[in-house]
Amino acid sequence: MKEEFSYVGRPLPVYDSQEKLTGAKKYTGDIELPRMLHGKILRSPHPHALIISIDPSEAERLLGGERFIATAKDGPGALFGGAIYDMPFFATGKVRYVGEPVAAVAAETPELAEEALKRIKVEYRELPALFDPVMAMAPGAPLIHEELPSYKGSANVIRSGNICSHTRIRRGDIARGFQEADYLFEDLFQTQTILQGQMEPHAAIASFDANGRIEVWSPTTGTFQLRSQLSEIFGLPLSQICVHPMPIGGSFGAKNFVRLEPYCLVLARKTGRPVKITASRYEEFTSFNPRHATTVEIKTGVKRDGAITARKVRLIYDTGAYADMGPMAAGEGAKQAVGPYRVPHVEVDSYCVYTNKMSAACCRAHGTPQPTFAFESQMDIIARRLGMDPVALRLKNAVGEGYIGPGGDRYRGVGIQEVLLQAAERIDLKRKEGIRRGKGIAVGHWYSGAGSSSAIMKLNEDGTVTLSIGAPDATGTDIMALQVAAEELGLPLDRIVLASKDTDHAPFDTLSSGSRITHCIGQAVRRASQELKTKILELAAQTLDADPQHLEMRDGLIRSNHAPEHPLSLERLARSSHFRMHGPLMATGTYFGEIGTFDRGAVKGFIYDMGEDRAFVAQAAEVEVDTETGTVSVLRLVSVNDVGFLINPPNAENQVCGGVHQGLGYALSEEVKMEKGKVLNPNFLEYGMLRANNMPGVECSFIEKMNGPGPYGAKGLGEQPGVPTAAAIANAIYDAIGVRIRSLPITPEKILRALRETNKLARSS
Amino acid sequence: MKEEFSYVGRPLPVYDSQEKLTGAKKYTGDIELPRMLHGKILRSPHPHALIISIDPSEAERLLGGERFIATAKDGPGALFGGAIYDMPFFATGKVRYVGEPVAAVAAETPELAEEALKRIKVEYRELPALFDPVMAMAPGAPLIHEELPSYKGSANVIRSGNICSHTRIRRGDIARGFQEADYLFEDLFQTQTILQGQMEPHAAIASFDANGRIEVWSPTTGTFQLRSQLSEIFGLPLSQICVHPMPIGGSFGAKNFVRLEPYCLVLARKTGRPVKITASRYEEFTSFNPRHATTVEIKTGVKRDGAITARKVRLIYDTGAYADMGPMAAGEGAKQAVGPYRVPHVEVDSYCVYTNKMSAACCRAHGTPQPTFAFESQMDIIARRLGMDPVALRLKNAVGEGYIGPGGDRYRGVGIQEVLLQAAERIDLKRKEGIRRGKGIAVGHWYSGAGSSSAIMKLNEDGTVTLSIGAPDATGTDIMALQVAAEELGLPLDRIVLASKDTDHAPFDTLSSGSRITHCIGQAVRRASQELKTKILELAAQTLDADPQHLEMRDGLIRSNHAPEHPLSLERLARSSHFRMHGPLMATGTYFGEIGTFDRGAVKGFIYDMGEDRAFVAQAAEVEVDTETGTVSVLRLVSVNDVGFLINPPNAENQVCGGVHQGLGYALSEEVKMEKGKVLNPNFLEYGMLRANNMPGVECSFIEKMNGPGPYGAKGLGEQPGVPTAAAIANAIYDAIGVRIRSLPITPEKILRALRETNKLARSS
Repeated sequence: MKEEFSYVGRPLPVYDSQEKLTGAKKYTGDIELPRMLHGKILRSPHPHALIISIDPSEAERLLGGERFIATAKDGPGALFGGAIYDMPFFATGKVRYVGEPVAAVAAETPELAEEALKRIKVEYRELPALFDPVMAMAPGAPLIHEELPSYKGSANVIRSGNICSHTRIRRGDIARGFQEADYLFEDLFQTQTILQGQMEPHAAIASFDANGRIEVWSPTTGTFQLRSQLSEIFGLPLSQICVHPMPIGGSFGAKNFVRLEPYCLVLARKTGRPVKITASRYEEFTSFNPRHATTVEIKTGVKRDGAITARKVRLIYDTGAYADMGPMAAGEGAKQAVGPYRVPHVEVDSYCVYTNKMSAACCRAHGTPQPTFAFESQMDIIARRLGMDPVALRLKNAVGEGYIGPGGDRYRGVGIQEVLLQAAERIDLKRKEGIRRGKGIAVGHWYSGAGSSSAIMKLNEDGTVTLSIGAPDATGTDIMALQVAAEELGLPLDRIVLASKDTDHAPFDTLSSGSRITHCIGQAVRRASQELKTKILELAAQTLDADPQHLEMRDGLIRSNHAPEHPLSLERLARSSHFRMHGPLMATGTYFGEIGTFDRGAVKGFIYDMGEDRAFVAQAAEVEVDTETGTVSVLRLVSVNDVGFLINPPNAENQVCGGVHQGLGYALSEEVKMEKGKVLNPNFLEYGMLRANNMPGVECSFIEKMNGPGPYGAKGLGEQPGVPTAAAIANAIYDAIGVRIRSLPITPEKILRALRETNKLARSS
Repeated sequence: MKEEFSYVGRPLPVYDSQEKLTGAKKYTGDIELPRMLHGKILRSPHPHALIISIDPSEAERLLGGERFIATAKDGPGALFGGAIYDMPFFATGKVRYVGEPVAAVAAETPELAEEALKRIKVEYRELPALFDPVMAMAPGAPLIHEELPSYKGSANVIRSGNICSHTRIRRGDIARGFQEADYLFEDLFQTQTILQGQMEPHAAIASFDANGRIEVWSPTTGTFQLRSQLSEIFGLPLSQICVHPMPIGGSFGAKNFVRLEPYCLVLARKTGRPVKITASRYEEFTSFNPRHATTVEIKTGVKRDGAITARKVRLIYDTGAYADMGPMAAGEGAKQAVGPYRVPHVEVDSYCVYTNKMSAACCRAHGTPQPTFAFESQMDIIARRLGMDPVALRLKNAVGEGYIGPGGDRYRGVGIQEVLLQAAERIDLKRKEGIRRGKGIAVGHWYSGAGSSSAIMKLNEDGTVTLSIGAPDATGTDIMALQVAAEELGLPLDRIVLASKDTDHAPFDTLSSGSRITHCIGQAVRRASQELKTKILELAAQTLDADPQHLEMRDGLIRSNHAPEHPLSLERLARSSHFRMHGPLMATGTYFGEIGTFDRGAVKGFIYDMGEDRAFVAQAAEVEVDTETGTVSVLRLVSVNDVGFLINPPNAENQVCGGVHQGLGYALSEEVKMEKGKVLNPNFLEYGMLRANNMPGVECSFIEKMNGPGPYGAKGLGEQPGVPTAAAIANAIYDAIGVRIRSLPITPEKILRALRETNKLARSS
């Protein structure tokens, strides 16, 4: 069936790869507007402190006036946020983390702005600070947000003290479930704070035109969401704002939310000039929005035959000073906590907790890699204890098609068996390679996303087609959309051109996130293409005096069954529709990816729904551990991905390789290290991202059952590839050297310490 | 019926009038792109000369390299044109007029570019030059285009010698028609060269991006036509070009055609940087494309009762060095030559003739004011000779609804009787005001345009609507489109926003010209609105559990007949379609304004068709002539316009006032004076455009029979108001002082000379 396609399923380069490779691509930081000023942000040096006074007078003298400096009194005003509106854009009354914005300046050069920052005098009075979420949850802990109960927010968010969101899920009777078990396993896992680590820092430009209409240039992954957020923040109708998407130099969730844009706007409003702000790498490391560190307590009851009877999970997400996307991550974590396994008795409590650190937010498969590390490590512990094959244990418990999770959420497109079996076979899991080598496997999943996408197509007068979509290209969106359009229209790719995408012109789209793009944009483009094709064939039928049913279009030629030797070219048809009859041909396609349903009896608290369609990934690793130094070498990494259908195979492979890279960094080396709220390693040199020479070749494979919700049965693929990696590595390390590391990253120090303790135990027993 | 409307028919300011009035509007000349260079054009000092050599070496040294200078060898290559492809962008081999581009330079500043021009050495050898089209038509005259027979062009264009287009129309038997007449009238009329006189000079910016895709910024009235022309000129597919429309600071036809853009592109290609060229006022006067000067010989046979039996017209359009829009003007002149009168025997020959002067092109109602001045002056001569009322004479011969003109072209929407009678009554034509005052009347008409227009609408998530159209706003297009959309959707104007219009995003449109915008854009917007409304009501019907037929939408609320007290707001519907069901709502509207038909037996040669729908205008003037100085004061000017329906009354009045201003300048004072191909008065001071203190108050009125092809029966209105003005003035002058001026402009010198000759005749008789 796949062989029938001409454009989808083919290896095609990412749409703008040439521009990117030659360095010609203009990112936000490269843009210069006439009369543009450069903005910089003054950030708090304290993790928790009252602001006694701000004296900008020396900076004002340097820059030439009051209008070049903005603080809380310049707006935008009300608190803002996602599920909870808890954040002022400028610290108001007090600061809650090292790096929080206190003031901003605009100057003719970045250097002058930097100099001005130094001249703003801020007097603080320090307050007791909280860095450990467990301490923050303790009764009597100082409050980071005294006003939390009164904050605006989603009705489902359960909050109190320093807990900004608590999601609980219950199924069956947990006590009975543990009673029915032959074995109980209780483990505590910890995951660290990591960065998205995208190459391009956050940046934005904003200006007001003569009518007060706002223009914003941003590498956001959601132009329409940003338009809507700015509309809310500044109290302006949507029609007064235009967002121009800029190339995205990596996001992985970092660019999913309004960030620098309001500071640019406040300064642009005060100065009457366009203002650009580009974050420094230091700011990226110390003030932006990393992945949540978590603590996961997981207790599982298992029968002798491996059947899980009950699972109780307590997750604590350290959200830092503001909730931001934390309730969403903690809610997703609650949903994923027991893993893709049939568990009759479930008790999950997932907490999102304030501390005096920078706020965490979205990072590839938000909320999910953390519990996956926990339950997939524990599955390995269980298998070893029961003497079972780790794949057999998982398959014994695996969810099936249509399974209803403990939250009432349905599983659709379940490929867990295929990916596990293939990964195990490819790594030859059962074959041991020597005393210091080991193999491990883990499975995980994500969705195909949901929500609104749309597309507009117009047939130009020369028979080329212009396609408009509203989703910025974070992951190869554009070439995917072009392939789908080419396939449906039977038109060579070079005859379809993509229009750029500002919010005035582009059709609506929610966000380039959640692995929703191939699914939702793909379907919207498909529908628009089909409508356009129908209109083309109807008009061609008039011209050829034929029944539209008897016409087919291929390579820009329309042929009738009856007289295939006399085709009508699309160009001729287009010219005649523009200049002799009918008028131009256009079409629209609109699509809504269904969200799932929940059992509100089982779930309490906030959950952000991603739809029911699942895409599974199993990863199997082979590692070699140097027991003298504790270093781990990843010899092989097999990733088996249940993708439904590959629209662009090499691009899919890129997604998997990038995800594995992030997953391995998560497993072994990446960590934002903090002391008293200050980041100790704010640069790539010390942060621990893996370099090319530390990467194994990733052995990718794909299962294509054409059973996803996207075009031709494609599923989403962006988030999954980093989800099970850390557990697969931890399991392989155990296999190699018999020690279990329960906290990420699995550094040489932790391995050596664990080896010492194991030896001690061995000696003492 | 008109009272039923809420948004159309209302006085609303032009969409961007505030920006324009405050000077905030950014025109092409105001735009600065990063790294942009400024271009200037070196122009020929000779009317006709061979180019022996071009030596740019000194200029190259000044600018720093060969790449800053372009001549014919840098392309774009092939000849270009409208109906005939006769023009190289850079003079090749020879120059044909004073002002023809020979080279272009790009430099960091306009001043440096100007300096570089002076250092380019061009050696010429002068050739005999032709300035009078009658001489140019003479056998044996030197040829301006030796290669004319081989030029690419429309098959209908009849050409030979220096005649680049000859259109002939025949009906009946002209000799018999003259035999049947009781009186014969033979007159020769002449009209001068005038400028469109728009305030903003021609300007353009062009750049190439990293992929070789072209971006162009231009105040063109036809972004899609410009895209298509550049595609042809540079041999690139449409998909490789994006044209950004810029505000139009006046066009009147001046900005209907590719002009400076290719020079910007050639320089941008050579330098790898964006290039802007802005014409100086001197260049506007000496090198751009004015209205054709003409000679009109008209012979008419009339019965004693005023019935016209035959009319023979010979028109000579002086097109200058290149055909440009000349064949179109001469073709239209042929169609209009006998006037809107029933004439059984017709012989028309209209010639478009090369001379060594700057090329003439489109100027408001192309080709039409010239013959209108002739036949409407002659109608007055006939009426006086027969002792008939001039209105009665015209009505006796006037075409009726459905009349087929001599070219086989149908008259639809004929309002000649209404406009003449109302204009005559309002000026009180029969009442003489004193010995030196007089009154005159004339009638003319134009079309409602034809061709393709389209519109795209999207419902935003807050219930506002974004409207996209592809026609630059030359005449109030935007507010008209918004009014139609608001009317159809029942939505306040401030909830509809217009997207900007580059060719990548905007739906196709042909050209903002020919009075086609209200008709074609209006209908496309109406269709898109109706489709969007249907989609909205269908979705609302699901939500309200009602039949869509029973729903109505007004002021952003959807109400059911059955429960009008529980309306559904459009905002709520929009949010739910975006975020809970269905997906975003969008709609498209496409429209093709029908072109007319011709009798190819009657017509030979080139005719550019404007459709069958006519809009008539009668103008009546009262003047006072000072017989000592020859100066004419226009005391009153009545303009009665058959517009079908007024969508925006004050904007329509603006169109009429502007047209009358141009018409009066044409009648009395404007003229590009030339000697040996050189312009003698290249500035506004000497050119003779009327100032505010020379303008009478224009007494506008409108006839609204809702019988036009546009929305609500609107007709086009852009071109008509200057068409009959000159004849009405000439007729009023005759009425005042008994002398007939047959050549425009009617200057004091001509009046005094005519008075002297009349007195001489009177004395000698």
